[in-house]
Amino acid sequence: MDTAVETTGTLAEDDLRRLDAYWRAANYLTVGQIYLLDNPLLREPLRPEHVKPRLLGHWGTSPGLNLLYAHLDRAIVGRDLDAIFVTGPGHGGPAIVANTWLEGTYSELYPSVGQDEAGMARLFRQFSFPGGIPSHVAPEVPGSIHEGGELGYSLMHAYGAAFDNPDLLVACVIGDGEAETGPLAASWLSNVFLNPARDGAVLPILHLNGYKIANPTVLDRLPIDDLRAMMHGYGYQPHVVDLVDPEDPTRGIDPDRAHRILAGTLDTALDEIADIQRRARGGGEVTRPRWPMIVLRSVKGWTGPHEVDGEPVEGTFHAHQVPIAEVRDNPEHLAALDRWLRSYRPEELFDATGAPQPLIAGLPPAGDRRMSANQHANGGTVLRDLVLPDFREYGVAVHEPGRTVVGPTAPTGEWLRDVIAANPDRFRLFGPDEVASNRLGAAFEVTDRAFVGQLRPGDDNLSPDGRVMEVLSEHLCQGWLEGYLLTGRHGVFTSYEAFIHIVDSMVNQHAKWLKTTRQIPWRRPVASLNYLLSSHVWRQDHNGFSHQDPGFIDHVMNKKAEVVRVYLPPDANTLLSTMDHCLRSRHYINVVVAGKQPAPNWLSMPDAIMHCRRGVGIWDWASTDAGEEPDVVLACAGDVPTLETLAAADLLRRRLPDLKVRVVNVVDLMRLQPESEHPHGLPDVEFDSIFTRDKPVIFAYHGYPWLIHRLTYRRRNHENLHVRGYKEEGTTTTPFDMVMLNDLDRFHLVIDVIERVPGLSVRAAHLRQEMFDARQACRDHTRRHGEDSPLVTEWKWAGAQGATPS
Amino acid sequence: MDTAVETTGTLAEDDLRRLDAYWRAANYLTVGQIYLLDNPLLREPLRPEHVKPRLLGHWGTSPGLNLLYAHLDRAIVGRDLDAIFVTGPGHGGPAIVANTWLEGTYSELYPSVGQDEAGMARLFRQFSFPGGIPSHVAPEVPGSIHEGGELGYSLMHAYGAAFDNPDLLVACVIGDGEAETGPLAASWLSNVFLNPARDGAVLPILHLNGYKIANPTVLDRLPIDDLRAMMHGYGYQPHVVDLVDPEDPTRGIDPDRAHRILAGTLDTALDEIADIQRRARGGGEVTRPRWPMIVLRSVKGWTGPHEVDGEPVEGTFHAHQVPIAEVRDNPEHLAALDRWLRSYRPEELFDATGAPQPLIAGLPPAGDRRMSANQHANGGTVLRDLVLPDFREYGVAVHEPGRTVVGPTAPTGEWLRDVIAANPDRFRLFGPDEVASNRLGAAFEVTDRAFVGQLRPGDDNLSPDGRVMEVLSEHLCQGWLEGYLLTGRHGVFTSYEAFIHIVDSMVNQHAKWLKTTRQIPWRRPVASLNYLLSSHVWRQDHNGFSHQDPGFIDHVMNKKAEVVRVYLPPDANTLLSTMDHCLRSRHYINVVVAGKQPAPNWLSMPDAIMHCRRGVGIWDWASTDAGEEPDVVLACAGDVPTLETLAAADLLRRRLPDLKVRVVNVVDLMRLQPESEHPHGLPDVEFDSIFTRDKPVIFAYHGYPWLIHRLTYRRRNHENLHVRGYKEEGTTTTPFDMVMLNDLDRFHLVIDVIERVPGLSVRAAHLRQEMFDARQACRDHTRRHGEDSPLVTEWKWAGAQGATPS
Repeated sequence: MDTAVETTGTLAEDDLRRLDAYWRAANYLTVGQIYLLDNPLLREPLRPEHVKPRLLGHWGTSPGLNLLYAHLDRAIVGRDLDAIFVTGPGHGGPAIVANTWLEGTYSELYPSVGQDEAGMARLFRQFSFPGGIPSHVAPEVPGSIHEGGELGYSLMHAYGAAFDNPDLLVACVIGDGEAETGPLAASWLSNVFLNPARDGAVLPILHLNGYKIANPTVLDRLPIDDLRAMMHGYGYQPHVVDLVDPEDPTRGIDPDRAHRILAGTLDTALDEIADIQRRARGGGEVTRPRWPMIVLRSVKGWTGPHEVDGEPVEGTFHAHQVPIAEVRDNPEHLAALDRWLRSYRPEELFDATGAPQPLIAGLPPAGDRRMSANQHANGGTVLRDLVLPDFREYGVAVHEPGRTVVGPTAPTGEWLRDVIAANPDRFRLFGPDEVASNRLGAAFEVTDRAFVGQLRPGDDNLSPDGRVMEVLSEHLCQGWLEGYLLTGRHGVFTSYEAFIHIVDSMVNQHAKWLKTTRQIPWRRPVASLNYLLSSHVWRQDHNGFSHQDPGFIDHVMNKKAEVVRVYLPPDANTLLSTMDHCLRSRHYINVVVAGKQPAPNWLSMPDAIMHCRRGVGIWDWASTDAGEEPDVVLACAGDVPTLETLAAADLLRRRLPDLKVRVVNVVDLMRLQPESEHPHGLPDVEFDSIFTRDKPVIFAYHGYPWLIHRLTYRRRNHENLHVRGYKEEGTTTTPFDMVMLNDLDRFHLVIDVIERVPGLSVRAAHLRQEMFDARQACRDHTRRHGEDSPLVTEWKWAGAQGATPS
Repeated sequence: MDTAVETTGTLAEDDLRRLDAYWRAANYLTVGQIYLLDNPLLREPLRPEHVKPRLLGHWGTSPGLNLLYAHLDRAIVGRDLDAIFVTGPGHGGPAIVANTWLEGTYSELYPSVGQDEAGMARLFRQFSFPGGIPSHVAPEVPGSIHEGGELGYSLMHAYGAAFDNPDLLVACVIGDGEAETGPLAASWLSNVFLNPARDGAVLPILHLNGYKIANPTVLDRLPIDDLRAMMHGYGYQPHVVDLVDPEDPTRGIDPDRAHRILAGTLDTALDEIADIQRRARGGGEVTRPRWPMIVLRSVKGWTGPHEVDGEPVEGTFHAHQVPIAEVRDNPEHLAALDRWLRSYRPEELFDATGAPQPLIAGLPPAGDRRMSANQHANGGTVLRDLVLPDFREYGVAVHEPGRTVVGPTAPTGEWLRDVIAANPDRFRLFGPDEVASNRLGAAFEVTDRAFVGQLRPGDDNLSPDGRVMEVLSEHLCQGWLEGYLLTGRHGVFTSYEAFIHIVDSMVNQHAKWLKTTRQIPWRRPVASLNYLLSSHVWRQDHNGFSHQDPGFIDHVMNKKAEVVRVYLPPDANTLLSTMDHCLRSRHYINVVVAGKQPAPNWLSMPDAIMHCRRGVGIWDWASTDAGEEPDVVLACAGDVPTLETLAAADLLRRRLPDLKVRVVNVVDLMRLQPESEHPHGLPDVEFDSIFTRDKPVIFAYHGYPWLIHRLTYRRRNHENLHVRGYKEEGTTTTPFDMVMLNDLDRFHLVIDVIERVPGLSVRAAHLRQEMFDARQACRDHTRRHGEDSPLVTEWKWAGAQGATPS
């Protein structure tokens, strides 16, 4: 048994008494929440009816969390720190709630849960109780930016919170279960991206609690020297605090000694942080410091029942959740709970009214210095709007549709460059090594990629001061950005469309956070989480099948309508308008998909703005229905489908000049849904006026075709809707071969029109055959020459007989 | 610059010459694939028309891969090793293809690509060419079990391959870009689960190549002592091989010296592995050894052009993909390519016919010892069927529907126990610490949880020999299982439904692998990837909103119909029948969702088998339509929706006895789709005979309701389909409150019937109000008492007027 004790320091006797009492109070309140319906101060002997019928909650991790919270409170007061607490073992909800109640914040935000006996009774009753509060560190918990239900994201959230917050300390407790996850394992090296001069500090505290639900944790069973080496390898200075009895690994050491050791170590670590920041902020070159971190080993369920029914509990995995289970039915269990609760000596902790005794109430800091009241953890309160340059000035001149060829992302890159420059303290770009590759490289005219590691000649726009966060981990990009947003800042995540699925589950959790916090009055709206997916399915022809997947849109569409938005701007100006809208929006998840490759531009800036505002619209200039009822509607969403649709419209105009074709473009996918399903939903009468009541609609869509059906199945003309999209056919090939593989190409769209418009299949049989031949010719050309046929690459929009764009 | 050289060893001059020639040949073939359409042996001066019009491929990582492949070949021959090669930097497709061609395997499997000049021309032309082969190490590449398109999974695949393969060596190259991902970071500690006596060996080779697309890699810029400490902390013995010129970090050291150093280090590492295995297999206690690993530092794009147009390329990120870009248009570039290719001295490497010279052909091992021909890497060839105990013997006795109450997973747990016992060398259970919690704990009667770390008294069924793989990382569970399956074994992954989204992107990649390999004749089918999701959305009431998400089904439904299957067995016997079917199936992804909580059983084993075989069926015994056309169809899929539907049917039978209700249960979700969309799809006529042509269908579904619409929108009666399911409303509450929050409860289903069946809304207005009152009463009870009302918990199926089950 390794019992490394690195620092004992000195702790004033007063402080010791205060810490001990506070810790006992927090533990008492934790157990009370898990078990009690009534009799909160144990003024009478515990009876079965005082106990909840359904016992829920996680005791095992809670005493360690309470200990750390108490010690951080002491340090905050002693050093006047601006600190927040990130609870990786997020199942320890009752512990964090207990601390926020002791700090008074809970009662301020939820006045019915006052700091008195009635309030304490409510505090206990509401926990994990229907109509009450969740069992984890949920958004309802003051001071939290981190729901710990799905494990793995604490440390990346902590780093995200620290970026651009030079005076902030983020204390981050990492559970040893959570530490087994991939996202957490990748997070340690976030310190390579943290600038000690400009950013705040993260203090990781790895809590070796020993067990998960049924297993030991991997990290707890590593030789302690290996664990030290690992942390050293990650660039940290590890401080090991071992509070386990060396004689009996299921028991803690004497609490007074524990307090002295932990206080001393915490002081050392905080001194080291202060030193690092002082040195880094004295001017001169910024290099990567060796930040401190703490390894805290304590027994699971410490201070809880050591045995139940003769079976060991404290210090084993049996302490994970509810250690004594049959309290209502088994008098011995009830008595054991009574003894356990009284072991904290509640009569010393709370006064006659039920309020915490002055000794305890005096531990935490006051006002906003309380970790539960820190404004950074309610990011909307410190959110400042971005200074946004006028996006219209970055637009592409479009005098005629389709004549200028500019990749959609490049102008947006120039605009983002100026957004970065205008907001040097509150906006960052995040992405896995793809900002330049996604043609957003203009950003590097004003900033660099952040990197606090070793620099070498030839490095490209790399410096500790960079505001572009590139790391080959979508998890880190997402987690850093979430932490950054939830503490009141702004950002954009740009990535390959296929690989954004890597963070599906994180998106779920963030969407849940947004949904829940909309209903919590004291939570203020934060900036939206913006995705710009530029290397999309249709232009990953060169990278092959593994890089081809448009399903992220489907994934986010399952989340609540009130928090998700999906945009498919068809060209450069619509992308600019969309991104401006997204950066102004609050509390959404905005998914924007737009290509990076050179492509024709369709709309002038005024038209683009109008089109984006409507979200869906008829493109008169591309239509041949002259404002009348058309024979067929060609609808499209996404830049590549729009190009193919216009090419099909062009073919139809030239070859079937009397066919009345209406071209409809959809930017905002949510417009397709009924009004009842989504706030952006188009009223049925408007939908019908655009898509007609009974004419064939050939819909060329960016992603999996069934999504369009899902969104429109309640619409009147759904029967006539024929959707082309990605049907999971791909490989390494050319761009046009990709659309042909999925029958989304211009020729196939013309075939679809011929097959669906009554009478055409006979009248246009020859054209239909020509289209098949054209497909074959393109395929042959590609196989022979390895590139797309000039037949398609040299096609240009030639104008339509319809109105020209205004 | 750290130039640690740990081992130089001795390398016979013959071997050196052979290695050098082989490496030059592999590099030559790599460059040829990226650039050449013709003139493969450079028999004439290079002309623009010899060069591909579109240059694709990743050069930067390739020379390092070629070097490692060559040295492993030497070691395999010298030691008669049974080895496979996992290519983490999977973009290096041309490198691995080059090696498989040199080994002869490629020509054996693809006879048109022979080992001669014509074959070499085809080899070059087909690479990244339409109709040819993908640019990555795709399934088409012999010897691969790992598509490197999406980075992060190499090391977990390697460990999965090594489990239960005691004689196998898995050499796993990890790119330093990939090493930044979470999944890879978590993989290092897989060695805590690898039993040196029973399992094979993994040799991780971390390739410090220096750069990603535009950034340096994090690991390459760490101080080398930190990197050593990190690897030591992970439990490895690191061997650093630094092949970078200490004077100029953009240049490699002399190749002869490089070969000597690498050969010596590889010998040392393989000696260590042999020692470890010898010790572990001599009997006695198995403990965690310190496995060797290699850190190989080499310059990116080594042996490629050092500068292009005066800009540095070799040893910088500019070498990542195609180092010389304008070969067809720029004569200087063309000349530079010519020089580059000739620098490998092709005339020494290939004979007059284009075949590799004997010196080169003599390096690789023969037959199945070639890594490209190793049968483990084409798992279907070594796949042995499972010995499956007769699942019917594990069934629950059901004499009357709904009378026995058994959680669905428990009997399956007993069956899985015996599957484990009967297949001690080829079946494992994988899960994040949840096998017992998912009530599959019977497994521990015959095996343990695998753990090769420190054991302590009180550990629960933990040993190095365990066949249950529990680690708190869904990524590791998935990646290990994929590696295990792709090398010809079998397994089940059990997890929480919400958190299986963590591996969404991995599932995508595995589905793509399965789809692609179905079309590759020499790839043999492997066992299916089976998910058993037992802690599902409806029974995560205690864990709260973060644990409530049924969207994984939607995610897999986007993959090709030919590879995905989704089953929702309603009770214990149907789950047994389903799991038996899944374990017998091949080359699918099977998703099975079934609860673990005690619940009524509906079908006897014979009925369950019949019902599962049909996938969907009318439950006559629960219906009151007496075989006639019903007034309404109550359809259900999923165990909780089935319970609510039967309770609703019971209410309707008692309260509206003349209403003809048909109850339909769906086990196999794919049956709902049209035949044209899925091989399991029900013909329209059968669908209509079950769901009627025009009667209201109230469909109670386990997940997001719109999936049912998506599957059925082409069905005749879709207009009358009303789906209830999870609509993203959840919190910490009781089970019945969860279904009420989402309007899936029995009372609301009755209301739906009343509102949808013509005439009922007037006739049954009173019942409708009663149902609303019942909902309110349940809600009030729950808020008051913290548990569900006896009104619902004590409900039991009382039999129907319809037929009793056979």
